[in-house]
Amino acid sequence: MTDPSPPTITAAMLIIGNEILSGRTKDKNVGYIAEELTAMGIRLSEVRVVRDDEAAIIEAVTVLSERYTYVFTSGGIGPTHDDITTACIAKAFGAAVERNPEAMRRLTAHYANSGVEFNAARQKMAEIPVGADLIDNPVSAAPGFILKNVHVMAGVPRILQAMFEGLKPMLTGGAEMLSRTVACTVGEGTVAGGLGQIQVGFPDIEIGSYPYFRAGAFGTSLVLRGTDEARLEAATEEVRKLVRSLGGEPIDIDDGSEKGVEEAAS
Amino acid sequence: MTDPSPPTITAAMLIIGNEILSGRTKDKNVGYIAEELTAMGIRLSEVRVVRDDEAAIIEAVTVLSERYTYVFTSGGIGPTHDDITTACIAKAFGAAVERNPEAMRRLTAHYANSGVEFNAARQKMAEIPVGADLIDNPVSAAPGFILKNVHVMAGVPRILQAMFEGLKPMLTGGAEMLSRTVACTVGEGTVAGGLGQIQVGFPDIEIGSYPYFRAGAFGTSLVLRGTDEARLEAATEEVRKLVRSLGGEPIDIDDGSEKGVEEAAS
Repeated sequence: MTDPSPPTITAAMLIIGNEILSGRTKDKNVGYIAEELTAMGIRLSEVRVVRDDEAAIIEAVTVLSERYTYVFTSGGIGPTHDDITTACIAKAFGAAVERNPEAMRRLTAHYANSGVEFNAARQKMAEIPVGADLIDNPVSAAPGFILKNVHVMAGVPRILQAMFEGLKPMLTGGAEMLSRTVACTVGEGTVAGGLGQIQVGFPDIEIGSYPYFRAGAFGTSLVLRGTDEARLEAATEEVRKLVRSLGGEPIDIDDGSEKGVEEAAS
Repeated sequence: MTDPSPPTITAAMLIIGNEILSGRTKDKNVGYIAEELTAMGIRLSEVRVVRDDEAAIIEAVTVLSERYTYVFTSGGIGPTHDDITTACIAKAFGAAVERNPEAMRRLTAHYANSGVEFNAARQKMAEIPVGADLIDNPVSAAPGFILKNVHVMAGVPRILQAMFEGLKPMLTGGAEMLSRTVACTVGEGTVAGGLGQIQVGFPDIEIGSYPYFRAGAFGTSLVLRGTDEARLEAATEEVRKLVRSLGGEPIDIDDGSEKGVEEAAS
């Protein structure tokens, strides 16, 4: 119905850390990576969170690496005994781990500047799989790395974000995913029938429905996504007409402005 | 080294929804479920987030159901075309879906009270796999359900939390996981060596190290978890001694009070 589409670029995220699964630390990395990838036209297709456990990490990274264009991991590359990500990723791909000269150089300079001893534990952060490319860490020097299609980053959000910013120019984006959001005070169950019919007519547009509760009133956000602007606008116009036919007033929402509304009941 | 431990009760969470993977909606359910399960002595071992895609949902729920004691899902049980969770879970276990009489009764009463039409789309929310038990929804009536060891809940945090509260008495908890947190201003790389040695001596205690940045100062939170109070205290005392030997002052932190600190560089 449109020009042949470019291949879909997909990604998965693997979060490594007992502290997320115990509830002690609330993950902030999925939301960040999800927004960044979406903006680049890369479709985040799956996220997994696993414990600091060798078998679990190796199994997850192997499956995700085979299945998606890119894999991004967070966590487990620090100096302590529970930081086992580097060893596990290397093992998953049959790579040896070496003390990387460039990583040693960066860490040596970093700790010389800070006056902190560059001891054996900290030198562990220079251990990188053979054949991997380094990911810059402008916050605390200890680099991440890229092995095959897997991008290994720190778990601390500020460091992960700095690492990802540096990575972005190296990633191949896909067709930009455009989106439209139409809000209305018509209930989700009321628009559901007509909305499903619109979806059938626009298989190339992904239509989602999300109830919300805002300023004391229930309503529904209808979110349309697609790569073809004309098709997206045509589907959105159908949605506006549907809302009006049900006695509601469709309100076009700037996607930036609707964040943080509390989503509520159907 | 202690009495034979009771079997470990494990769990996985499966989050279903394109809106999480696009970054539009920030997940709040993992943190909640993780804290609740940890408090019940149930070990959350894995989390997956998948798209509103039949094959992805079926694959994930099948694997997780075989691997863990309990599975909890969130999302995709509303009235619209993109709500496909119920059909997928049923298909994963070879169950048929029926219009459940008790679910119909609850929804009929709910919509009669609210004056909203109980139309075909809303009746879809009464479709439940044959043989499943209902999960009460005190917020918006539409029930979740339990099929085998899979607990299917709504994605809206307020509803998920209300559903989970009702579920709790039905879950078998494990040995309570006790935890101690010792904070110090000693760097993570400085404690790493000694900490690893303590971990070797206490294989029954899980020791984690988390750098933080708080009130303008860097520091390290050392978190110890275990089910045996005496062993946990013995390991914690070793950690306090280690911190002191490195010139630091160990501070016992009430686990409730350290939430929300920004975790920072190693």
